[in-house]
Amino acid sequence: MPYPTLVFTTDFGLTDAYAGVMKGVALAVNPDLRLIDLTHQIQPQNIAQGSFLLGINHEFFPQDAVHVAVVDPGVGTDRRPVLLSTPWGRFVAPDNGLLSGVISGYLNSIQAPTGPITLPMGLTAVHLTNPKYWRHPVSETFHGRDVFTPVAAHLTLGVPPEDMGQAIDSLFFLPMAQPAHDDGKITGKVVYLDVYGNLVTNIPANTLPVGVVAEVRIKGRIITGLSRTFNDAQASGARLIALVGSHGYLEVAVPNGSAAALLEAGEGEAVEVVAASG
Amino acid sequence: MPYPTLVFTTDFGLTDAYAGVMKGVALAVNPDLRLIDLTHQIQPQNIAQGSFLLGINHEFFPQDAVHVAVVDPGVGTDRRPVLLSTPWGRFVAPDNGLLSGVISGYLNSIQAPTGPITLPMGLTAVHLTNPKYWRHPVSETFHGRDVFTPVAAHLTLGVPPEDMGQAIDSLFFLPMAQPAHDDGKITGKVVYLDVYGNLVTNIPANTLPVGVVAEVRIKGRIITGLSRTFNDAQASGARLIALVGSHGYLEVAVPNGSAAALLEAGEGEAVEVVAASG
Amino acid sequence: MPYPTLVFTTDFGLTDAYAGVMKGVALAVNPDLRLIDLTHQIQPQNIAQGSFLLGINHEFFPQDAVHVAVVDPGVGTDRRPVLLSTPWGRFVAPDNGLLSGVISGYLNSIQAPTGPITLPMGLTAVHLTNPKYWRHPVSETFHGRDVFTPVAAHLTLGVPPEDMGQAIDSLFFLPMAQPAHDDGKITGKVVYLDVYGNLVTNIPANTLPVGVVAEVRIKGRIITGLSRTFNDAQASGARLIALVGSHGYLEVAVPNGSAAALLEAGEGEAVEVVAASG
Repeated sequence: MPYPTLVFTTDFGLTDAYAGVMKGVALAVNPDLRLIDLTHQIQPQNIAQGSFLLGINHEFFPQDAVHVAVVDPGVGTDRRPVLLSTPWGRFVAPDNGLLSGVISGYLNSIQAPTGPITLPMGLTAVHLTNPKYWRHPVSETFHGRDVFTPVAAHLTLGVPPEDMGQAIDSLFFLPMAQPAHDDGKITGKVVYLDVYGNLVTNIPANTLPVGVVAEVRIKGRIITGLSRTFNDAQASGARLIALVGSHGYLEVAVPNGSAAALLEAGEGEAVEVVAASG
Repeated sequence: MPYPTLVFTTDFGLTDAYAGVMKGVALAVNPDLRLIDLTHQIQPQNIAQGSFLLGINHEFFPQDAVHVAVVDPGVGTDRRPVLLSTPWGRFVAPDNGLLSGVISGYLNSIQAPTGPITLPMGLTAVHLTNPKYWRHPVSETFHGRDVFTPVAAHLTLGVPPEDMGQAIDSLFFLPMAQPAHDDGKITGKVVYLDVYGNLVTNIPANTLPVGVVAEVRIKGRIITGLSRTFNDAQASGARLIALVGSHGYLEVAVPNGSAAALLEAGEGEAVEVVAASG
Repeated sequence: MPYPTLVFTTDFGLTDAYAGVMKGVALAVNPDLRLIDLTHQIQPQNIAQGSFLLGINHEFFPQDAVHVAVVDPGVGTDRRPVLLSTPWGRFVAPDNGLLSGVISGYLNSIQAPTGPITLPMGLTAVHLTNPKYWRHPVSETFHGRDVFTPVAAHLTLGVPPEDMGQAIDSLFFLPMAQPAHDDGKITGKVVYLDVYGNLVTNIPANTLPVGVVAEVRIKGRIITGLSRTFNDAQASGARLIALVGSHGYLEVAVPNGSAAALLEAGEGEAVEVVAASG
């Protein structure tokens, strides 16, 4: 039988031992675990970024994976530790919006406001209140180590969620900003800047104009047409290109270079898409 | 049966392949190993930092874990490669003080001087002299790959420590600086700066004043009272707080910010704790 | 039976989730996998660096390991995805020279030019054309996730290489620059700069002068004699040393310091070795 898998998504970084010690705690509960990092380098306290990366990536993992997600500026306060069970994995996390990217895949509408949201059909959640499955003493500042990881590890031992706390029917939701559609123009923004300097927008691939040449406008620059790959533009000498990235969203990139550096742009930068005149 | 676990704590970083190739060597000896990183980002050659992080974190791992600890500026010299066996894990490391944080948990007094220390009851050590359990050829500059990791992997195969070298009864000890207690005042210092900019001191939580408001003084600033969490101070508008961190020591922090940046302070900075007048 | 092992060597970094999501894809194909990082921090798009690190490190891993190597600036173009089978591991990678360091170990001569090279005896390769073993939909920009990793995971399930595409008898080869030998002088260059600031050259240890004192010249500085370890020079007060590093090549280093910083030197810097006059 394959070993059960925990997947970590945190802002703990890899310089300190915070990420490493969580794995010790996990193995102390269940020595059979496989421990995988999605990333520990979410920007410190950037819940929206963690939500985005977890939302777009979790379906690449096996459906029986247990995810430990910790971007937790409210650690030690009354924000709730929760377990969310979905058809595509279980998630142990603070109830601060970090699971919004996961939840949004199950919503009929993506226009939900910030705040508590009733769970869509097929999802169930538990407020983790049973200290039996925590590591003691529980620190006030590191629930990743003392609450979330040991709970996740106990889940893999077969402890039923209902033993871990009270069923709840809503979680805190932090919607991703949605692009505006106006008279054929889509106005979105950069929501993620990757290590290559690619600018990932919130404009989904499937909303882009079909069958016409599109213009992408960012910081006063106009990019004509979408490239298929990072190399399409090399023949024509263009430096700045727009393409559908592997996240499933429109990206602005510089082949073998950094669009972020060229444009001096980052998260929040406005991006427009229009059908081109040409 | 669960797979045996090696835990790595090194200053090799993650940019080069030094950390990765040790895992290849480990698997070439025992293909059943689970390989975990506590951290590879100890500051280069900072033995004291490695000792601190290993000391405070190793008890979170299963007791049968084998730790490979390598911060080894003396690699290739006559500093000894050693194996330390404790009730809470076995440790393969250079004998340069890197295991002091582990050893100090077994000492009656923490005032031992720098230098060889007789092993406390319950701990045993071996000077690793048997090349049978090394990888050949042995380089002069990378014993993490050629000595420490293969020895650790052979341990998980059941090779008895006594086959690996000579029993020894002392190891080199590098004590952590201890805070001074004088007339109700505790004078310590920052011993670790984490990625968030939190300043971790050498003042243990259990030595802090009980039942009175404490004042924490650092770089001419006075922090009144200890916060329980990173968020306690937000209502009162305070930026700089003091709290007991997850390491079990007094920390100075800025909620959602960096105390190191605010104070321009780092390792070595003096910190005082007194009972407050108010 | 030990779990099969995938080893990753990429330029995806650890800040984004690119490295992490490949592991999800691998486990979704074969939940029994062990997943190891050689490094994800090859310099972006630096194929030569990836080739070097994979070449010198792959033989430390078990011979049945499957390597996923992705430094792939041509992703989405007609550069071929390939599988290379060797006596020392199988390699799934883009056919852009990234496997040159592996291949060169099997060549009689290392003077092959850049371009297609006929595979040496004992190596076989397949052009990966069968989409059955890919993850769908296949993005245009992330074949590490959608092609290379799922192919590698299927290999560990026992899928025969011939089912994955067409046998090919040549791969694109990118030779490492070779040092010049002239009248007892060796002229090489720095090919790798590690995190400590050590300057690794392309001058193999076994070509260095034997039985005489060697002089190493770099940036107008002369280093007399080879040190055996990073500590040899400390008695004599020398800051800059030359030694045979763990990669098997001549290195220039500063004990407990950075030769790169001291010399303001990096990859490409010329290095000369001569028999010393003294």
